[in-house]
Amino acid sequence: MNPAPRILVWNEGVHETNGHPEHIAEIYPDGMHGAIAAGLRELLPDSPVVTATLADDQHGLTEERLESTDVLLWWGHAAHDEVADEVVARVHRHVLSGMGLLVLHSGHFSKIFTRLMGTTGSLGWRDDGEEEKVWTVKPGHPIAEGVPSPLVIPAQETYAEHFDVAEPEEVVFVSTWPGGEVFRSGITYTRGRGRVFYFSPGDQAYPVYQQPEIRRVLANGVRWAAPTGPRELPSVRHLSAQP
Amino acid sequence: MNPAPRILVWNEGVHETNGHPEHIAEIYPDGMHGAIAAGLRELLPDSPVVTATLADDQHGLTEERLESTDVLLWWGHAAHDEVADEVVARVHRHVLSGMGLLVLHSGHFSKIFTRLMGTTGSLGWRDDGEEEKVWTVKPGHPIAEGVPSPLVIPAQETYAEHFDVAEPEEVVFVSTWPGGEVFRSGITYTRGRGRVFYFSPGDQAYPVYQQPEIRRVLANGVRWAAPTGPRELPSVRHLSAQP
Amino acid sequence: MNPAPRILVWNEGVHETNGHPEHIAEIYPDGMHGAIAAGLRELLPDSPVVTATLADDQHGLTEERLESTDVLLWWGHAAHDEVADEVVARVHRHVLSGMGLLVLHSGHFSKIFTRLMGTTGSLGWRDDGEEEKVWTVKPGHPIAEGVPSPLVIPAQETYAEHFDVAEPEEVVFVSTWPGGEVFRSGITYTRGRGRVFYFSPGDQAYPVYQQPEIRRVLANGVRWAAPTGPRELPSVRHLSAQP
Amino acid sequence: MNPAPRILVWNEGVHETNGHPEHIAEIYPDGMHGAIAAGLRELLPDSPVVTATLADDQHGLTEERLESTDVLLWWGHAAHDEVADEVVARVHRHVLSGMGLLVLHSGHFSKIFTRLMGTTGSLGWRDDGEEEKVWTVKPGHPIAEGVPSPLVIPAQETYAEHFDVAEPEEVVFVSTWPGGEVFRSGITYTRGRGRVFYFSPGDQAYPVYQQPEIRRVLANGVRWAAPTGPRELPSVRHLSAQP
Repeated sequence: MNPAPRILVWNEGVHETNGHPEHIAEIYPDGMHGAIAAGLRELLPDSPVVTATLADDQHGLTEERLESTDVLLWWGHAAHDEVADEVVARVHRHVLSGMGLLVLHSGHFSKIFTRLMGTTGSLGWRDDGEEEKVWTVKPGHPIAEGVPSPLVIPAQETYAEHFDVAEPEEVVFVSTWPGGEVFRSGITYTRGRGRVFYFSPGDQAYPVYQQPEIRRVLANGVRWAAPTGPRELPSVRHLSAQP
Repeated sequence: MNPAPRILVWNEGVHETNGHPEHIAEIYPDGMHGAIAAGLRELLPDSPVVTATLADDQHGLTEERLESTDVLLWWGHAAHDEVADEVVARVHRHVLSGMGLLVLHSGHFSKIFTRLMGTTGSLGWRDDGEEEKVWTVKPGHPIAEGVPSPLVIPAQETYAEHFDVAEPEEVVFVSTWPGGEVFRSGITYTRGRGRVFYFSPGDQAYPVYQQPEIRRVLANGVRWAAPTGPRELPSVRHLSAQP
Repeated sequence: MNPAPRILVWNEGVHETNGHPEHIAEIYPDGMHGAIAAGLRELLPDSPVVTATLADDQHGLTEERLESTDVLLWWGHAAHDEVADEVVARVHRHVLSGMGLLVLHSGHFSKIFTRLMGTTGSLGWRDDGEEEKVWTVKPGHPIAEGVPSPLVIPAQETYAEHFDVAEPEEVVFVSTWPGGEVFRSGITYTRGRGRVFYFSPGDQAYPVYQQPEIRRVLANGVRWAAPTGPRELPSVRHLSAQP
Repeated sequence: MNPAPRILVWNEGVHETNGHPEHIAEIYPDGMHGAIAAGLRELLPDSPVVTATLADDQHGLTEERLESTDVLLWWGHAAHDEVADEVVARVHRHVLSGMGLLVLHSGHFSKIFTRLMGTTGSLGWRDDGEEEKVWTVKPGHPIAEGVPSPLVIPAQETYAEHFDVAEPEEVVFVSTWPGGEVFRSGITYTRGRGRVFYFSPGDQAYPVYQQPEIRRVLANGVRWAAPTGPRELPSVRHLSAQP
């Protein structure tokens, strides 16, 4: 067990910098990464939490930084292509070695997520600010602990199936919207030694990461994704001949 | 491959006999089993299709009948407890030996389904005759072939998560209703050599089994569940010592 | 998280009472349950650990005892049929409500395990006291933490595929023997709110539960299976109509 | 159903061209692709079977060729890096669109396989020409139909866990070797609309693809992986607003 995983919240930070949408500074005065980090600090008070953005040197994802990260959270949308391939390869290597990863919302199209999935990450969407209901379909799961079902988000972008991801190992949450759309909104994977949790709620136009129940899911996700053993990259091994 | 699986459609037949609801004879003049069988005969014209009900001797599920059945469909609701335990054990043994099984709608509480799941089969429900949208979440799956997404059922009972089943091997369909309810409505399992498909649409009060898209799902399900090898019950084997 | 799950080690205790095999008192002076409990006390010093056997009143599995148990370990072999059905139903209800369960070795044929699987639990076997190698196939899994791969057991009964269980949610360990036999020896499931781990090493004729690496697996298994939320039996819910 | 899937057997062909090992021309006079194709023609006589190699223009994997392929088999080892990235991207797109893919033996390190897995594909190995036993662990699966368990390969390279792949959707075969090594040798996935089967037996130094039971597995695999619906790449969809 890892009582205090070291957390890095990564946000491309482009919506915040561009002031798009205009009200983003009102709902996220410290950026989405600031709001996410604040929630984690509140619920995991023993965990060190730092943030990084695309504009940082090496996007703030240096070898040293990743080595001292137990769980990385990833928010990206407008600038997936601007993330350097070598940084993506580095993050990928750390996930396979055991670093936990939480991919958020529009991160479904990020280089790191589609690299881990082997699929396109595509989905259906519309943005009408409607209510999202997040239903727990695996109630004993640690990520669902203390989360109401449904968890109601007053206004959100709508995502819809088919969501082109690798078959999830676990479907923890499924969301619905007033148009009857449905989306597997909380799904888990393992890749190498690393644990991956994708969670779709969260958007630059709605204060989703300020909502206590959402913060609870993210804190639970961090605890679930935190590595329990040493970091080690899976590698080819030449066995000695049978004695 | 099995080009023409032999099909047995089982319906407890209690709603039909009791005339409950009153209009059941209008929407299902030949019973729900009659409608299901008609759909399968239409889409799988080479397959022999027979029906049986609770009132039949041994519920129509004799050893001989099951031996000559490749895929069994099961509809039950009002009389789960009246199904004899020895018949359930017989059906169970045939499923483990390779007979395919499709469990329909309120069959989630049947003895055979909960015996195969190891869970309660419980769920949330209300019956307000509202529209159900059935979304495909695994589009390349044979059971989803030719099925629109969403498949819209004009009026249906509402089912809702949490659905207490064993973790599905595949989630093919997920349904939503106007209240925002969500339900994993098409899920698959293997047990022993047998394949099991649970499909939730279908109710005594709505003509769901008359709908062509639903009939398509059932025919696809039968093809998917049909055994590809010989029938054989898994059994304990005492191995000879290592040479 | 549950730092100190309350543990109940259940052993039918028949081999010990009957002195079969004769040397069981030498390798397990306190019974297999005693050895298992000693290992858990050593590795989980904060956890209260109690034991119970078939001969106890209600097999030591009263409602009160189960209510105060977070994780139950189950060893049975010679007397599966003597376990009262009502006790099995009670244990089953507690597992579905969230109590963790570890099923050991010949428990593959126990009433509670086959009830949870929906299958026969059958397998191939021979007993030639040969070396078992337990390989980790999911290295980042909490149950594999600190466990060598292969974990070598000097002498053990041989189990072989096909093992007739429900498709595992996770395969953590796979074992091999000198005859080339293979067996999925560490597999996980969820049923209702409960987590289930089956682990095949362990036998009345070999001091497997005295081996430190095996004790590590059991302690890891207990931590993994311990419930993270409140105990609650999944049940049917009548929803109020859509507002 | 697809009674006669169109098959393309791809082999890098480098071992054959280089005469490495020297006896490859004896055991595979028509190359490994020739032997694989011959086996498929024998068991799937209605299926058109063609072959292609790395040396062909665009490695023989043009848009036109892939469009007319239902199932692609992939053998590579010495020249993974020489496969052009744009060809890999093309194959990937066709798999996601519904083309079946069988990845063979050392293809675990191919660009297309690791792209689909999101992992390294690494494993343990030694090459001592020892007997491999391939055990069926999912006996009702179509790929296991008519395959003995164990299927014995007299001489083979040894592969060993941990095999760094995405968690398989199904484990159909597990192999063992005399050193006690174990390997998940037959595993399935879906990615987008496509079905993927990895099967480890087969090597340039041993006449594995001449063995009838191996040919049976490959033919079964082709039938299982053949698409049942139209080819279509998963893509992002902007939904119209809720009516």
